[in-house]
Amino acid sequence: MIARPARFDLVVRDGLVAAGDATVRADIGIRDGCIRAVAERLEDTAQIVEAKGRLVLPGGVDAHCHMDQPNYGAVCADDFRSGTLSAACGGTTTIVPFAMAHASDPVAETVAAYRRRAEGQALIDYAIHPTIQAASAQTLEQDLPALIRNGYASLKIFTTYDDFRLGDAEILAIFKVAAQHGALVMVHAENDAIIAMLKKDLLSKGLVAPRFHAKARPPIVESEAIHRIASFAELTGAEVLIVHVSSRVGLEEVMRARARGVSIHAETCPQYLLLTEKDLDREIVEGAKFMCSPPLRTVADQEALWAGMARGDLAIYSSDHSPYRLTGPGKLQHGPQSRFDQIANGMPGLELRQPLLFSEGYLKGRISLAQFIALSSTNAAELHGIAPQKGSIAIGADGDLAIWDQERETTVTPDLLHDNTGHTPYEGIRIRGWPVTTIARGEVIVDDGRVLGTAGRGRFVPSRARVAS
Amino acid sequence: MIARPARFDLVVRDGLVAAGDATVRADIGIRDGCIRAVAERLEDTAQIVEAKGRLVLPGGVDAHCHMDQPNYGAVCADDFRSGTLSAACGGTTTIVPFAMAHASDPVAETVAAYRRRAEGQALIDYAIHPTIQAASAQTLEQDLPALIRNGYASLKIFTTYDDFRLGDAEILAIFKVAAQHGALVMVHAENDAIIAMLKKDLLSKGLVAPRFHAKARPPIVESEAIHRIASFAELTGAEVLIVHVSSRVGLEEVMRARARGVSIHAETCPQYLLLTEKDLDREIVEGAKFMCSPPLRTVADQEALWAGMARGDLAIYSSDHSPYRLTGPGKLQHGPQSRFDQIANGMPGLELRQPLLFSEGYLKGRISLAQFIALSSTNAAELHGIAPQKGSIAIGADGDLAIWDQERETTVTPDLLHDNTGHTPYEGIRIRGWPVTTIARGEVIVDDGRVLGTAGRGRFVPSRARVAS
Amino acid sequence: MIARPARFDLVVRDGLVAAGDATVRADIGIRDGCIRAVAERLEDTAQIVEAKGRLVLPGGVDAHCHMDQPNYGAVCADDFRSGTLSAACGGTTTIVPFAMAHASDPVAETVAAYRRRAEGQALIDYAIHPTIQAASAQTLEQDLPALIRNGYASLKIFTTYDDFRLGDAEILAIFKVAAQHGALVMVHAENDAIIAMLKKDLLSKGLVAPRFHAKARPPIVESEAIHRIASFAELTGAEVLIVHVSSRVGLEEVMRARARGVSIHAETCPQYLLLTEKDLDREIVEGAKFMCSPPLRTVADQEALWAGMARGDLAIYSSDHSPYRLTGPGKLQHGPQSRFDQIANGMPGLELRQPLLFSEGYLKGRISLAQFIALSSTNAAELHGIAPQKGSIAIGADGDLAIWDQERETTVTPDLLHDNTGHTPYEGIRIRGWPVTTIARGEVIVDDGRVLGTAGRGRFVPSRARVAS
Amino acid sequence: MIARPARFDLVVRDGLVAAGDATVRADIGIRDGCIRAVAERLEDTAQIVEAKGRLVLPGGVDAHCHMDQPNYGAVCADDFRSGTLSAACGGTTTIVPFAMAHASDPVAETVAAYRRRAEGQALIDYAIHPTIQAASAQTLEQDLPALIRNGYASLKIFTTYDDFRLGDAEILAIFKVAAQHGALVMVHAENDAIIAMLKKDLLSKGLVAPRFHAKARPPIVESEAIHRIASFAELTGAEVLIVHVSSRVGLEEVMRARARGVSIHAETCPQYLLLTEKDLDREIVEGAKFMCSPPLRTVADQEALWAGMARGDLAIYSSDHSPYRLTGPGKLQHGPQSRFDQIANGMPGLELRQPLLFSEGYLKGRISLAQFIALSSTNAAELHGIAPQKGSIAIGADGDLAIWDQERETTVTPDLLHDNTGHTPYEGIRIRGWPVTTIARGEVIVDDGRVLGTAGRGRFVPSRARVAS
Repeated sequence: MIARPARFDLVVRDGLVAAGDATVRADIGIRDGCIRAVAERLEDTAQIVEAKGRLVLPGGVDAHCHMDQPNYGAVCADDFRSGTLSAACGGTTTIVPFAMAHASDPVAETVAAYRRRAEGQALIDYAIHPTIQAASAQTLEQDLPALIRNGYASLKIFTTYDDFRLGDAEILAIFKVAAQHGALVMVHAENDAIIAMLKKDLLSKGLVAPRFHAKARPPIVESEAIHRIASFAELTGAEVLIVHVSSRVGLEEVMRARARGVSIHAETCPQYLLLTEKDLDREIVEGAKFMCSPPLRTVADQEALWAGMARGDLAIYSSDHSPYRLTGPGKLQHGPQSRFDQIANGMPGLELRQPLLFSEGYLKGRISLAQFIALSSTNAAELHGIAPQKGSIAIGADGDLAIWDQERETTVTPDLLHDNTGHTPYEGIRIRGWPVTTIARGEVIVDDGRVLGTAGRGRFVPSRARVAS
Repeated sequence: MIARPARFDLVVRDGLVAAGDATVRADIGIRDGCIRAVAERLEDTAQIVEAKGRLVLPGGVDAHCHMDQPNYGAVCADDFRSGTLSAACGGTTTIVPFAMAHASDPVAETVAAYRRRAEGQALIDYAIHPTIQAASAQTLEQDLPALIRNGYASLKIFTTYDDFRLGDAEILAIFKVAAQHGALVMVHAENDAIIAMLKKDLLSKGLVAPRFHAKARPPIVESEAIHRIASFAELTGAEVLIVHVSSRVGLEEVMRARARGVSIHAETCPQYLLLTEKDLDREIVEGAKFMCSPPLRTVADQEALWAGMARGDLAIYSSDHSPYRLTGPGKLQHGPQSRFDQIANGMPGLELRQPLLFSEGYLKGRISLAQFIALSSTNAAELHGIAPQKGSIAIGADGDLAIWDQERETTVTPDLLHDNTGHTPYEGIRIRGWPVTTIARGEVIVDDGRVLGTAGRGRFVPSRARVAS
Repeated sequence: MIARPARFDLVVRDGLVAAGDATVRADIGIRDGCIRAVAERLEDTAQIVEAKGRLVLPGGVDAHCHMDQPNYGAVCADDFRSGTLSAACGGTTTIVPFAMAHASDPVAETVAAYRRRAEGQALIDYAIHPTIQAASAQTLEQDLPALIRNGYASLKIFTTYDDFRLGDAEILAIFKVAAQHGALVMVHAENDAIIAMLKKDLLSKGLVAPRFHAKARPPIVESEAIHRIASFAELTGAEVLIVHVSSRVGLEEVMRARARGVSIHAETCPQYLLLTEKDLDREIVEGAKFMCSPPLRTVADQEALWAGMARGDLAIYSSDHSPYRLTGPGKLQHGPQSRFDQIANGMPGLELRQPLLFSEGYLKGRISLAQFIALSSTNAAELHGIAPQKGSIAIGADGDLAIWDQERETTVTPDLLHDNTGHTPYEGIRIRGWPVTTIARGEVIVDDGRVLGTAGRGRFVPSRARVAS
Repeated sequence: MIARPARFDLVVRDGLVAAGDATVRADIGIRDGCIRAVAERLEDTAQIVEAKGRLVLPGGVDAHCHMDQPNYGAVCADDFRSGTLSAACGGTTTIVPFAMAHASDPVAETVAAYRRRAEGQALIDYAIHPTIQAASAQTLEQDLPALIRNGYASLKIFTTYDDFRLGDAEILAIFKVAAQHGALVMVHAENDAIIAMLKKDLLSKGLVAPRFHAKARPPIVESEAIHRIASFAELTGAEVLIVHVSSRVGLEEVMRARARGVSIHAETCPQYLLLTEKDLDREIVEGAKFMCSPPLRTVADQEALWAGMARGDLAIYSSDHSPYRLTGPGKLQHGPQSRFDQIANGMPGLELRQPLLFSEGYLKGRISLAQFIALSSTNAAELHGIAPQKGSIAIGADGDLAIWDQERETTVTPDLLHDNTGHTPYEGIRIRGWPVTTIARGEVIVDDGRVLGTAGRGRFVPSRARVAS
């Protein structure tokens, strides 16, 4: 006699599921990796996870992180194995790292290389943003349209960094192609010439401590570049996302462009909401932990960013996880006496990203529950072309869920975290609420601190182009 | 043998349900009036409605309409019976009309009177906005807190009209109470003194045709009042909703206030999106159809409002249904030679509200599907305190649904509509898409033009106060 | 033999005269009270004043001050005799006080009464601003046009204070008349209802110290009223001057209106540039010295005002001299335990007005010399309709001059000053530069501290209406 | 017996001289080229010019024009002889053309070459703006400081045109030097990359008619560049002048920067106030007359510029005289079938500049008389470092005057004008008011159409650096 299979592989029972800003009690049933039912009561299942009235939210989507990226000079401490493990432990079920290589490398090969790095390593699913560092006719006419068609419809460009930055003409050309083929263009927007001038001035005066990193990149660096990018987007019709917006004046340029109808979105990161430039005022090794670009700003900037999230002018909240160790060839590859311009930029954040926003944003009343979900999951999935497969609790969507214990209190220590950097700028911060269970495509991969999923189970998720309107 | 009851009373089978801006195929199961399951496939039901791949959306929430309102002078052609019938035929499953009486009447009594008018008449559910036309100590200290506690947490005030308008001090006092008790305050924001002056000037020059109605209420009337209200909201912390925003400059004041963190929302209506002041340029009886306050504006204002909806600066789309017949004691109660200031203001819109936005907004690409749902249903439910019971497809929510046929083409004629006004300013407009089936609390009340529900089945839905943060 | 009369009555020899932002060496020749020549060298004169290379500037015009004004409750310590003496000692040669009485008094009589108070008392010339506290048909149709025709083309209205404030309808009506007849309307712009509410709240909590005066009138009180007034000016075409702008947000509303072409100007006063609300944080008698309305603000507001002057968005710099003694029936008429709302508002400033701006503005590089002259003299004369007779060194203009010693250093003490209040909020401030010689209509009336002019020599100067464009 | 020399060489008798917005009757006495006296009545003079109650204004300063400039490809039809003659016939007494050469030429040599071209040719005085087309260490550290010291404190840079444009880093470097040494930097602000892209697109589609010139340079080209330049000025503290602002959005960026305290000024030209892009809609030869960069805009842009002048947000009104003949190697050097990108940009304007503004601006009430003088003369002299020698009627200033007949009516024809281009875009326009007599350093050089001055009498006027504050 053939056993009749259970209707569901997994039921998350009696969770509190968001409906707008309110919540409703429901069971969620998953089969073959996808959500098949949301209902008052679901039976007939192979496995039950008891939510017991705790919040059940879509798994997080971290759409800005760096993984196994060899070309920075400094060595990236996390590969897809450690990075996705850390992400999953923080309730994130999808990451979108960059495929970044030398400008001279064919972008399709670079993307393929990153796919190989992820293969067999990733614990959770991933899409990939190719970075575009050149705009030859070949790139514009053939490579980009092919990439976009093939599941890489979310591109990344830079206006700064010698190895990556593009000039106005190149950016315009890429925006035209993106607009035509329905890709999103993420932009690291900082004016390169201003930074170069200020950096040179500071170094010439011997001002080399970490805190001068912020002086070399004042907010006007960001507002100028955002205004320029917004102008290019307005002209070409491209849809753009300004990544890691750090300042009040930067956000204002986004808002002005939105007010006149430009398709422009903005992302911010936990460091710009919770840390300030005062954190840079430490000696080299400690200060290095707080170095990222754009740099940390002021309390007034933090407030502007929180308000922008509450108002809907900031769409996405990502980690910009950039894992450099303090020892060895990481942050301080040029030694413990490194000047600010020699220290690798970036900080870890994959794992704490969502808990920080939940604790400081939602539970402190700065944003609603619906905004927490949109900022940390749904909006990123939608803008990057992986919705509704990712980022929603919807029938047919992937069974990617996180169960949150709103009462759990955690004090951050480096030991708590599963990435390979070995340090965190949030050390000592007290967090309320934690994603105690992470479920990816219907599989419980993390439960109460225990990792149950297997490296390599994560799959590539294609980022689809927008349909021409 | 006792028959095992069906698990669901009704299943809507194989609908296209929104998940953000995308859609997923799903069945929706309803029992005892509430949604109990959303799933790939639901069996075990007493009744099945086959959606056959058509869109299944939350029923509309029309949060601004006038019903059986005797105190305007002109006679209101719709009572709760005809009004809710018309609404239901346009896919709307909840209305929120006003309880408006003389300033001297105790507001609790006025509300009770409107409850009685609805009782036994309404086809769909309803909440009620009390209008506050006086601010005595009794009102502020006792009546308002009691109202808010008792399910009337969405109040309405006016800055114009001799019988209704409140002065600055009264508005401030009401805002303080609303902020303290968690009510939303809807504001009809037009500067009364400017209107009075311009009206007098025009009449003294014999400029009495309908088109001078717009000259008597230029956009600055609205922008001045909105700025003032926003200032009062900022100061008191009250959450306010500017109703029927009609102009670019009015919307700009809302945006400026939002940018500095004021809890201010904006509503607009179909007439401001689809008609212009040129429509007023007709002889008296025809022109009267196009008279509403604020008046119709220009194409540039329309564009600003569409852009505001796309950007999220306009939260709610309502009808402001104000049903006055062209004959008898309605629009032209003062006769066919009425001056513009003698003609009753307002136009019908309950039934066409959603089809117009679906056709002109969503299908023409001006707004997304998610925005259509938010603007015409969810946001109104959330802001007016009746979510998630109303406005969402969520477990436990009321089984209020509309099934949309995206292909149906309709040319508007007065005969098409079920309200009692007998005319429509949208006559001749061609609409694509129509809500062919309306389901309210799990009951199919309208299906392909046939009304199946019974008057009086509609119930009062309490509007709940915000929780103090 | 008949003596040939000297060509000039007075020559100011070898002064440094402003030409734009630069200066040129020149003699200025005066005859019969008027400037007849400006030249490299003028001979043939009855009297010579040697400027010896010092700056010779137009005498100051203080277009906002209160003199012999009985109707405040508190007694006004200065009459036209002491007030004009004090003004002249500070380089001012024209004042424009208000004619203010009970709303029920005919405005022509009130103006006549003030003319009588000035007669035989004033040391320098004066125009008069009638305050309009009612808007009857008589006022609008007859009194105002007559006033404007008769040399009172600069009116004043209030939006606050129980005895003075006008409602929207009255303000609009007055603006229409002013626009039609070419008058300027000065507006004290603060939202009365907000002040009343906050004052009541504070007093009900026992918060009565002087510092709560600022809490009762936060900047939004000013920005709301300015936006409203700007809307009314835009609608009616009236030219308006917002007096004593105190805050960044208030100035922003002026700038926004100017940007869209409204005829709106702004005035500020020394107290808003040099003092802050922290100065109010003293016990009652000392704190009372720093009470004025609008109240003192923050350092950020000061900076915005300085920048507004440098940019040209603030046109006029006046004293708002309001002379109340600390003893007797002045500031503390209700006794030394007065609550903040019982203390008379205002502070002296006639004499220090120009020296403070010269020292803190011009010599510290915040504004140019041309801006100093425009702000403290020329612009006031032009806007109030007494130019070019007053406010310029021009042929045919009145011989009103001040010779400035840029090097003189003065430490402010009450003894230094010639008004009757007996105190100054600037006590202890160190001033560089002083108007050592004051010349009015060709007569040296103050020279190096000695008063040479005779009370009663000052004359009424009619304020002329703008010509309709 | 030795004749006693006359006290004045020239007296302009009984003129109407501006004093602010009003006028006063006065004589002006000149000796040795400079104004020595302004008085009611001046005797004792060698020569008298009877003004007979007509306006006597400072001679115009045209601070943006091209003269004998060989390096455009097209031949410049005017040299200093014809150009200054034309200017003088239009009431202008000082011009400031550019010294422009190949980027590789040492700037000091270029300047010297232009000085030689002017020598013996110019009828009126002139300063010179060096254009800076490279930013080598030599240029930045030695050449620029020397130039600024030596009377060339007003520099010009470009953000567009292949031969001239500078990148961000070069602009920043030049701004730093300018800020340090007190020079003004004039900026031709258009985004080069956008223009290149649009031009290529248009040409590839065969859209080559003159009207596509405007399509290749939409207003966003200007607003982007102005925002960028304003950011650089804010950062470096440089004082900048955006030349030939053409659009509403461009002006808005200037205003925003001014509002936050940036030292930024704006210039516009007659073509942007009086012509529109519709004028380009002609066949090639006629359309070529209306081609300039930035291109002509819309009526809405014109209105924004007029309002900007009235408000003081536009400081300078220049001609941008760029004299290309329609025949020979001028506008159409590539032949009568030239594509829009092959036609030389620019139009004549030296002579009509002031009459157009007087007629269309002052006499039509859009700007006041004081604004006419400031815009067309004084402000240019002040910002470019040649005041008060130029641009004012002040003791010691150069005796540069124009006597205006307000009643004269002139219909523009090419024959009327004295430049060498042979055409004018203003043909047929009716002008009221004309500068009938031009006096330069006390010499009547043009009188009622007769040229009395001799070529070569004009001298170089050094442009002085600002003093560090």
